[in-house]
Amino acid sequence: MIMSELLQLYKNTRSHSVALCEPLEIEDYIPQPVDFASPPKWHLSHSTWFFEEMILKKFFKNYKIFHPHFSFLFNSYYQTVGERAIRTERGTMTRPTVAEVYKYRQYVDAHIEKLLQENNAPELQELIILGINHEQQHQELLITDLKHTLSYNPIHPVYKEGFNLTAQKNEVEGWLKIPEGIYEIGFEGEGFHFDNEEGRHKVFLHEFEISKSLVTNADFLEFMEAGGYENFKYWLDEGWNWVNENQINSPLYWEEIEGKWCSYTLEGLKLIEPDHILTHISFYEAQAFATWKGLRLPTEFEWEAAADQLKWGKRWEWTYSAYLPYPKFKIAEGAVGEYNGKFMVSQMVLRGASTATPKGHERKTYRNFFQPKYRWQLTGIRLAK
Amino acid sequence: MIMSELLQLYKNTRSHSVALCEPLEIEDYIPQPVDFASPPKWHLSHSTWFFEEMILKKFFKNYKIFHPHFSFLFNSYYQTVGERAIRTERGTMTRPTVAEVYKYRQYVDAHIEKLLQENNAPELQELIILGINHEQQHQELLITDLKHTLSYNPIHPVYKEGFNLTAQKNEVEGWLKIPEGIYEIGFEGEGFHFDNEEGRHKVFLHEFEISKSLVTNADFLEFMEAGGYENFKYWLDEGWNWVNENQINSPLYWEEIEGKWCSYTLEGLKLIEPDHILTHISFYEAQAFATWKGLRLPTEFEWEAAADQLKWGKRWEWTYSAYLPYPKFKIAEGAVGEYNGKFMVSQMVLRGASTATPKGHERKTYRNFFQPKYRWQLTGIRLAK
Amino acid sequence: MIMSELLQLYKNTRSHSVALCEPLEIEDYIPQPVDFASPPKWHLSHSTWFFEEMILKKFFKNYKIFHPHFSFLFNSYYQTVGERAIRTERGTMTRPTVAEVYKYRQYVDAHIEKLLQENNAPELQELIILGINHEQQHQELLITDLKHTLSYNPIHPVYKEGFNLTAQKNEVEGWLKIPEGIYEIGFEGEGFHFDNEEGRHKVFLHEFEISKSLVTNADFLEFMEAGGYENFKYWLDEGWNWVNENQINSPLYWEEIEGKWCSYTLEGLKLIEPDHILTHISFYEAQAFATWKGLRLPTEFEWEAAADQLKWGKRWEWTYSAYLPYPKFKIAEGAVGEYNGKFMVSQMVLRGASTATPKGHERKTYRNFFQPKYRWQLTGIRLAK
Amino acid sequence: MIMSELLQLYKNTRSHSVALCEPLEIEDYIPQPVDFASPPKWHLSHSTWFFEEMILKKFFKNYKIFHPHFSFLFNSYYQTVGERAIRTERGTMTRPTVAEVYKYRQYVDAHIEKLLQENNAPELQELIILGINHEQQHQELLITDLKHTLSYNPIHPVYKEGFNLTAQKNEVEGWLKIPEGIYEIGFEGEGFHFDNEEGRHKVFLHEFEISKSLVTNADFLEFMEAGGYENFKYWLDEGWNWVNENQINSPLYWEEIEGKWCSYTLEGLKLIEPDHILTHISFYEAQAFATWKGLRLPTEFEWEAAADQLKWGKRWEWTYSAYLPYPKFKIAEGAVGEYNGKFMVSQMVLRGASTATPKGHERKTYRNFFQPKYRWQLTGIRLAK
Repeated sequence: MIMSELLQLYKNTRSHSVALCEPLEIEDYIPQPVDFASPPKWHLSHSTWFFEEMILKKFFKNYKIFHPHFSFLFNSYYQTVGERAIRTERGTMTRPTVAEVYKYRQYVDAHIEKLLQENNAPELQELIILGINHEQQHQELLITDLKHTLSYNPIHPVYKEGFNLTAQKNEVEGWLKIPEGIYEIGFEGEGFHFDNEEGRHKVFLHEFEISKSLVTNADFLEFMEAGGYENFKYWLDEGWNWVNENQINSPLYWEEIEGKWCSYTLEGLKLIEPDHILTHISFYEAQAFATWKGLRLPTEFEWEAAADQLKWGKRWEWTYSAYLPYPKFKIAEGAVGEYNGKFMVSQMVLRGASTATPKGHERKTYRNFFQPKYRWQLTGIRLAK
Repeated sequence: MIMSELLQLYKNTRSHSVALCEPLEIEDYIPQPVDFASPPKWHLSHSTWFFEEMILKKFFKNYKIFHPHFSFLFNSYYQTVGERAIRTERGTMTRPTVAEVYKYRQYVDAHIEKLLQENNAPELQELIILGINHEQQHQELLITDLKHTLSYNPIHPVYKEGFNLTAQKNEVEGWLKIPEGIYEIGFEGEGFHFDNEEGRHKVFLHEFEISKSLVTNADFLEFMEAGGYENFKYWLDEGWNWVNENQINSPLYWEEIEGKWCSYTLEGLKLIEPDHILTHISFYEAQAFATWKGLRLPTEFEWEAAADQLKWGKRWEWTYSAYLPYPKFKIAEGAVGEYNGKFMVSQMVLRGASTATPKGHERKTYRNFFQPKYRWQLTGIRLAK
Repeated sequence: MIMSELLQLYKNTRSHSVALCEPLEIEDYIPQPVDFASPPKWHLSHSTWFFEEMILKKFFKNYKIFHPHFSFLFNSYYQTVGERAIRTERGTMTRPTVAEVYKYRQYVDAHIEKLLQENNAPELQELIILGINHEQQHQELLITDLKHTLSYNPIHPVYKEGFNLTAQKNEVEGWLKIPEGIYEIGFEGEGFHFDNEEGRHKVFLHEFEISKSLVTNADFLEFMEAGGYENFKYWLDEGWNWVNENQINSPLYWEEIEGKWCSYTLEGLKLIEPDHILTHISFYEAQAFATWKGLRLPTEFEWEAAADQLKWGKRWEWTYSAYLPYPKFKIAEGAVGEYNGKFMVSQMVLRGASTATPKGHERKTYRNFFQPKYRWQLTGIRLAK
Repeated sequence: MIMSELLQLYKNTRSHSVALCEPLEIEDYIPQPVDFASPPKWHLSHSTWFFEEMILKKFFKNYKIFHPHFSFLFNSYYQTVGERAIRTERGTMTRPTVAEVYKYRQYVDAHIEKLLQENNAPELQELIILGINHEQQHQELLITDLKHTLSYNPIHPVYKEGFNLTAQKNEVEGWLKIPEGIYEIGFEGEGFHFDNEEGRHKVFLHEFEISKSLVTNADFLEFMEAGGYENFKYWLDEGWNWVNENQINSPLYWEEIEGKWCSYTLEGLKLIEPDHILTHISFYEAQAFATWKGLRLPTEFEWEAAADQLKWGKRWEWTYSAYLPYPKFKIAEGAVGEYNGKFMVSQMVLRGASTATPKGHERKTYRNFFQPKYRWQLTGIRLAK
């Protein structure tokens, strides 16, 4: 990539994070009601910390860190890089203030921009691109985490009128048949990709059919009305326990008000639209729905083999594949290596992308992954048979 | 009380809450890291809600409530007054904003002031005084809760230079002997008091001696150095479990840094001063310390009988009395009655007052109470024998 | 006491433990479904261990302990006497077998009997009497713990036909008025008593009335039918949480079968008899019932002052007194001292005795104590006003 | 299968369960210290219940069930067949007694034997074989669950001298290379197999090498001495949390006594033999060990493709494959269908067999599965690269 293009991409990405926070009040930057989500302040800081820790400290001559505490406070997983604040206590940190965090961003941006004008080492370029992709991942989390936090408020705050991540209709229908054969899976080519997509390899697939469309709210309401949440026979044992322990009877954010199903959205509480694409469901619900239909979820390999002939990108689609290493997968040395491989157990793969995924971040070989119980991402269902 | 005096007292009290928050950043108003403490925003709102709910709705003709959601959000215990937001989720509420909360305060203040100029019904006057005392209680909680929240931050934020609740020395020494006899316990006279102090009654006390001074940090360090936290024989069984489950080895907020005991204070991290009065200890620690000394804690009746001859008011002093009803105690009808009587089990009485107690709020018959494990209030130890 | 009488008392007490277990199958000696109750095997062993550890090791010349593991396995609280097996894992110990435990009892009995024929030191005599009282306490726990364990079995096992701890009627009625005055509280005289009863002292009591009868099932059914379990206003805050978290809607062991209230008893499932005395209720329920009646529970001092004029001994009666030290209470040195004083926080006093209390073990100054939530003892309600 | 052979197989299988319990005391049949393991009494009853519920009720004319309670008490997972006792309370059931359970077995055996002499319907035959395999599975659990329960006893009970499931040496060494290609996976042929092995299908495998030997105690001690349990970089994130939360520093049942590693076995406490095959490790430990070695675990497909050239059957070998459905897997209708498919999420596949697996129950297509944290089975490690 030409250096000026990279600089522009850097600036655009960094601006987009700020733009996402434009509608926020200072108060909105702080709370962390659940340990799996983080406050906006933390996302803004942590993505900045990545550029400081992984790039400026190494490449910027005589770099003076912005503040000694920030490294400690805004590290996330990276155990290699020293102690870090406890994940579950991100919501208790009132200082540094939001204003200071923005100063931190500006300080790091100024140094990165200076650095990119002077240095075009391929290793630097690679890390910048990694940092950009890392920030894009946090942009998606920032907005989905924020929605989750705001959803706790009984007064249903509006993030921004006209900004609604969930109001999409299907535009296609029917089934796509894919013939038996050997398929190549995994990233190929030159662009950016994560380590977990590497190791392009062959898989044998038997013939299958995959739906061109995603499941809609109307489809799922049928399942609900047919007693889907009350009948153990559609559920995995672990899913059935999850339903009962958490008294689940609808997708996340849904509430029944005077006989009508509504849902909390970033525009406030809205009526469920039957023809919109279903979202905010767990793997357990996706699997139970498929079983109830007499169908199944595709594997991630089937999905990738079919992807070029499918319309995808509005929802993260649960697959019936566990998140496991590809053949020859190796964890990279050092902190960067803690990125993906550490999580390769007890999680399910999601393929596609969502309306919260930043433009240019999606990729057909992209492997997203979450524990099967999680619902706060923009998840959806594509069926196979 | 003359109405203009009452109005002035109201204004002073309300201003004091605002003054306590003057050093805060917006961010500081939000988090609630533990369920037993509440954020400043909630204290400011809830004490205001009390005046709106208990007084304006009833006495102010055609009163228009400030906002329908606030009643729901800022109710605390009062089950009589309808649904309320879940206590453990106070820290997740980003809206209403802090600015809106201040508007709410001004709106209610304006109406109360107008009301007090027009109406001097004794019942109104009584409720205003209750509301003032309620707000004073929340002022003490506001500052101690805030300290607790800030203490989670590894960068030890400073609330305000020169404002330090814990830097007091003893000014007295020796023992006071109180003779055997019948003593009158409980509130007497005309001023304000809570329902739990009522029912003045006789108790028989055997002769006892009570210390004129409170235990210092140096005293407690001796206990620590003598292995006090490691020897079960000084501890109540429940206290010993508490020590071990929570790995307690010092008072709250203390940390040992390079061999020196320091403590988080509202002025940041400070060295422990040996001659300062000990604070932030649980009942279990108070009791274990007394046992180690071969002494004991006074009962609340002994304390009250001796109070006029003691210097008190810098620490809440744990007594070895459980918080139980006085003879003839009756819970008042309605929401006001939910105030005190509901908590009369599994808590211990503290007598005295602390440096966080608003001026004029302290009283020798005042019965403060907490579960024996709690330490975030400005608690201390006075010994008896 | 004459030595031969003491020996006879020892033998009778020891035989009674064995007699209580006569209807049991081997299987019944093992499980411990909850941590607050212990299996019969443990009670039989632990009460024997007490005689071995506290008496034989000290007084019996060249005493050879029965088995080195038993000291470790059957110690309960006594931290002074070395490590002990974890309380919550008593139900996992299949070895030593029940047969071995009976051999252990016989071995210790033979040695104690020999010792008592040779040695009449007052200190020995005192410890024997303590051991007898200790075993009597465990007899009561053995049968109430056993009932609790059997109650988990959906097939409602019968312990023994004709043996029913709960089928008692009231035989008295009306109120007893006790005049204001100074009363002496605590043990007086020469017989056996626990350290927590010592320190006879004066208390001043205001005039009160205390019920001659105990609350019946019919009385409590009225409370239930009046919605007592659904109305927070009768409950202490802690009690209300307890009701809701545990979904309590009746006394322990009750179940509604086809519209009729039944209760698990040691004779199997039985219909609730309205005129029988209520039992298996928590302090919270006792207090809520009294509040609903517009009455209150007596204090332990009121109870003791009235005891000589009351019929008592079928139920442990919850008082509204916390379990706290009497004036001048001192914990005895060593293991014996761990008996009572260690528990003097967060528990409520029960007075009286129950149908499970061994004959001769009851005493009007006896202070029983449990946490307010517990219901598996034969607890009941006596009202005061 | 000829009917007389089937009858003989039935009798042998049923006798083996009884033989496994021969060394037990009555007491050993009862406890269930953890919810993932069940008491011997339950295994004996549940495997019998299977024959009664699935076969006798359907095929034996006018069959009179042994006892109405047993169906309720000894059902395990099968939600289709009505309510069942709570899994975590199996250890609280003292009745029916062990003697009654043996009578139940004899009663059911007599009826099955009679039935098999009269009826040779293929459907019956198939269910009998399923019941036999089901009982064999419970035989393996019975002995591993029992070991787990006995391990809680600080006196290290001996189950039976000379019976030691863990004292095996490796008899092979070196690596086996398997070429790239398409392999057929899943059960083929006519014999018994579980539904999860069905759907023989093709998978493409890249070239790999797999170890002929299993990891030994000496190998693992090297890992331990190299600080393997203290270095996060070898561990999956979930595994690292598991290590820290549970303070794991060795395989299950190991304890260090005076500087020497010992292990609880069914023969009591024994010194660790370096050249014995490692066992009782979690998937997390297996994966961390492989990472430390710079190697990896095989997938279940690699394992099956290599199985005919490997010596296997002493340990259940953790694979790096999640337990997921094979293509075209369908859950069978009714209770039998609840067997396997319900668990296809969040578990890892183990291949091979163990020294506790009944003879004839092992199969190269057999898919065993457990959550990655479990260690009480006879698990081991085979490496791949």
